[in-house]
Amino acid sequence: MILYELVGADPSRPFSPHCWKARMALRHKGFEIETRPVPFTQVPLVENGFSKIVPVLRDGGTLVADSFAIAEHLEDAYPDRPTLFAGEGGRRLSRFVESWCQTALHPFIVSTAVLDLHDGLDGTDQAYFRQSREARLGTTLEAVPVGREARLPAFHAETLKPLNFLLGRSPFLGGESPLFADYIVFGAFQWARISSPFAILPASAAVADWFERCLDLHGGDGRSVPAAA
Amino acid sequence: MILYELVGADPSRPFSPHCWKARMALRHKGFEIETRPVPFTQVPLVENGFSKIVPVLRDGGTLVADSFAIAEHLEDAYPDRPTLFAGEGGRRLSRFVESWCQTALHPFIVSTAVLDLHDGLDGTDQAYFRQSREARLGTTLEAVPVGREARLPAFHAETLKPLNFLLGRSPFLGGESPLFADYIVFGAFQWARISSPFAILPASAAVADWFERCLDLHGGDGRSVPAAA
Repeated sequence: MILYELVGADPSRPFSPHCWKARMALRHKGFEIETRPVPFTQVPLVENGFSKIVPVLRDGGTLVADSFAIAEHLEDAYPDRPTLFAGEGGRRLSRFVESWCQTALHPFIVSTAVLDLHDGLDGTDQAYFRQSREARLGTTLEAVPVGREARLPAFHAETLKPLNFLLGRSPFLGGESPLFADYIVFGAFQWARISSPFAILPASAAVADWFERCLDLHGGDGRSVPAAA
Repeated sequence: MILYELVGADPSRPFSPHCWKARMALRHKGFEIETRPVPFTQVPLVENGFSKIVPVLRDGGTLVADSFAIAEHLEDAYPDRPTLFAGEGGRRLSRFVESWCQTALHPFIVSTAVLDLHDGLDGTDQAYFRQSREARLGTTLEAVPVGREARLPAFHAETLKPLNFLLGRSPFLGGESPLFADYIVFGAFQWARISSPFAILPASAAVADWFERCLDLHGGDGRSVPAAA
């Protein structure tokens, strides 16, 4: 299993939420992984231009891009290993968790961490990142995080409510043990943790306890990359 | 199958989101239902004080309260009928959909519809409802909906994003056909539709199309109660 993961100037600090989802899915299935660090502007060269995005997984002769597609590949190809979806309903509703995560968590994380993300890249990637993200966001990278402290209380009180409500009653989204849905949400907070020193999780909350449990999973793989300082 | 459903002054207009979840779950399993209308202040008398909440289901000699518990009872007792969860993962992640629905949708619906809900009750229930809700909300029922039009754009643009994102790609949360997760979300919009003339769904959006599909399910059962005028 070879997993191509997005990195910045430091190849030992993969940060992409999508790459973390794939990595946790592989570990959940019990695989050892060989990781290959890829900076932004090298993504088009991975496996001879197989995909415009990472993660890309090479599983023997099979190539798969996209974290959800990788989870589905692993579930379908290795049904006897620990399940990522626990059935077809779990697979379908993982898409709702993904939708919620990408529309509720990701924009907030971008709004707090985009300049830190830029600063962690090497020079060539910085130029690409600034140009593409400033066009998408309609402003400078420097302007985006301004006032991020002031936006935190509403994020804690409103955006995180569904997670806190659920995780106050259940150790994982998947119940007593994690499913791919947990890794979808974990990926977002891990992205924030690795790319920015600005802490977005409340100090004391069910979601914070759950995140620590996720960092402990699979031999503490998530914790093996230290938080941004 | 006898289902006790919350009603106001008009016993033909059950409005509770939780009762609609249970009703759709029963119809999904292919059951004919005998419904029993219950006003707020009569709930403690249902089945000799079996529960403080409705829905209550009588399934032969078995009594079950709470919509999720009813869905679980139906799934466990009637595994050969159409599935509500499509496996254990679907059952677990339906709890996330429930958490999201109750923390993101329900407070908004209360904020638009609470006075209309009050106005639809009979006299005894109105007194109970005003006292309990004003204590919970910390203000008068009349003050709550003030400015609801102005809150609608953010509800459409932000709160509904996860649904629109998913339902733009898939006919139901459950995929090609509905699961209990669909009925959880349907219950919220059906509650708004029946109790208040204030329309909260955008005129044109994936979530609006999905809601119409849900109203058509099971012989158009959801549509059998006209929208509030």
